[in-house]
Amino acid sequence: MQSNVEDVLELMIDGLIPGHSIDCVVLGYEDQCLKLLLLKCKKTSVWSLPGGFIHKKEHMHDAAKRIMAERTGLDTVFLSQFHTFGNHGRRDIEKMYKKFNHPFQHTPVTADWFKQRFITTGYFALVDIRKSLPVPDALSESCSWVDISKLPDLIFDHEEIVHKAMGHIRVQLNYLPFGISMLPERFTMTDLQKLYEGFLGRSLDRSNFQKKMLKLGIFIRHEKQLLGGAHKAPYLYSFDRMKYEALLEKGIGFI
Amino acid sequence: MQSNVEDVLELMIDGLIPGHSIDCVVLGYEDQCLKLLLLKCKKTSVWSLPGGFIHKKEHMHDAAKRIMAERTGLDTVFLSQFHTFGNHGRRDIEKMYKKFNHPFQHTPVTADWFKQRFITTGYFALVDIRKSLPVPDALSESCSWVDISKLPDLIFDHEEIVHKAMGHIRVQLNYLPFGISMLPERFTMTDLQKLYEGFLGRSLDRSNFQKKMLKLGIFIRHEKQLLGGAHKAPYLYSFDRMKYEALLEKGIGFI
Repeated sequence: MQSNVEDVLELMIDGLIPGHSIDCVVLGYEDQCLKLLLLKCKKTSVWSLPGGFIHKKEHMHDAAKRIMAERTGLDTVFLSQFHTFGNHGRRDIEKMYKKFNHPFQHTPVTADWFKQRFITTGYFALVDIRKSLPVPDALSESCSWVDISKLPDLIFDHEEIVHKAMGHIRVQLNYLPFGISMLPERFTMTDLQKLYEGFLGRSLDRSNFQKKMLKLGIFIRHEKQLLGGAHKAPYLYSFDRMKYEALLEKGIGFI
Repeated sequence: MQSNVEDVLELMIDGLIPGHSIDCVVLGYEDQCLKLLLLKCKKTSVWSLPGGFIHKKEHMHDAAKRIMAERTGLDTVFLSQFHTFGNHGRRDIEKMYKKFNHPFQHTPVTADWFKQRFITTGYFALVDIRKSLPVPDALSESCSWVDISKLPDLIFDHEEIVHKAMGHIRVQLNYLPFGISMLPERFTMTDLQKLYEGFLGRSLDRSNFQKKMLKLGIFIRHEKQLLGGAHKAPYLYSFDRMKYEALLEKGIGFI
């Protein structure tokens, strides 16, 4: 199994640009949480961001789209570059090998590839979790959505990459189509609030949030479904796409 | 002369990371114009951004600082990464050789280096022109400040890199210390207005601009110097650094 993976990687490596990688901060919303797509490295307890390399004749942005499609099964998602990480020693692979007994420490063919210095370009993606089909890569045993407020140990500088992405997103939150990219077709105002809170990293006042939101005039309110239970069912909303996109141009500045 | 340059470059190349370059959009203000620092390639009429490569054990950000210092003589300037350009074919060097009779087409030692695919990371810098001492690199015959509204022919995708930088700066203009970085210690309100206009690419109403600006409370007004001429001398201002920096944190949102 091990040598099989290595054969595949050796073939791949020939077609790749050395020294440059891509790492993706892929964000989704589920169970009232902002979630991050992570890969669990084989035989270790360490996790990593979905990432990959660039083919010799491939545009970097196309490589990022391909990597996203491979890991999430999604062809069209909101995907944007945010920063390139170029510190010397940012991938201290020897340290990682020791700390996590990384499976690639004894495979000489690929060891040279993974030991080289990589500059990595970070992309972030905003995804509808319900439409995604996470698939692990050759180095990982699983690929799954993790609550962003409870991140596990991440490999190398991947935690820094996540923080940088979140800072970048916060600054331009009013201009990003995250609502329409990440929420289901119909959602509650609580969903929308929890999504905002996930990005902002703080709680918002419920009634104030809903009042300001509904004033924007970008929502269609749907009839309540009668559930017959003790709880009052909340209203479901969907975006009026035209109005949402028009407002996004100017910035949805209500926070 | 030619082989001398080549010897120097060959030695340098050994110590560099292949495939990754840095390009700097260096901006200054002079003669009521926003200006860009450009290099004129030897024996051609084509210009390029100041740029360079990363040493094998150097952080990418340190490489950008070093390149800036080498070209401008300035150690401490406002320097920030804005985008990484990774299109395949973005440096069509064969086409450039033909179009501009580039001097490196006949120097085999360095030809391989310059013909490889480069991903380049763009940095922008905000500079006080009066303190800068532009120095050309080994490939260039001059290094000078050019009015950004009258750019000459730029090599490869350097025009796209400039446009991307300007777009990036416009979006975060309210948070950038460009006034204090680019204007002389004492300046007129007209200087400040022209600087804003250079970034925004449009004219602003003079009296409205000055009224809003002065309301911010971040300026110290100095006594008029008596010139004895027919013209009324304008007031000179300097920044109240503490107040300027405090306001910058929140964003100088008056445009």
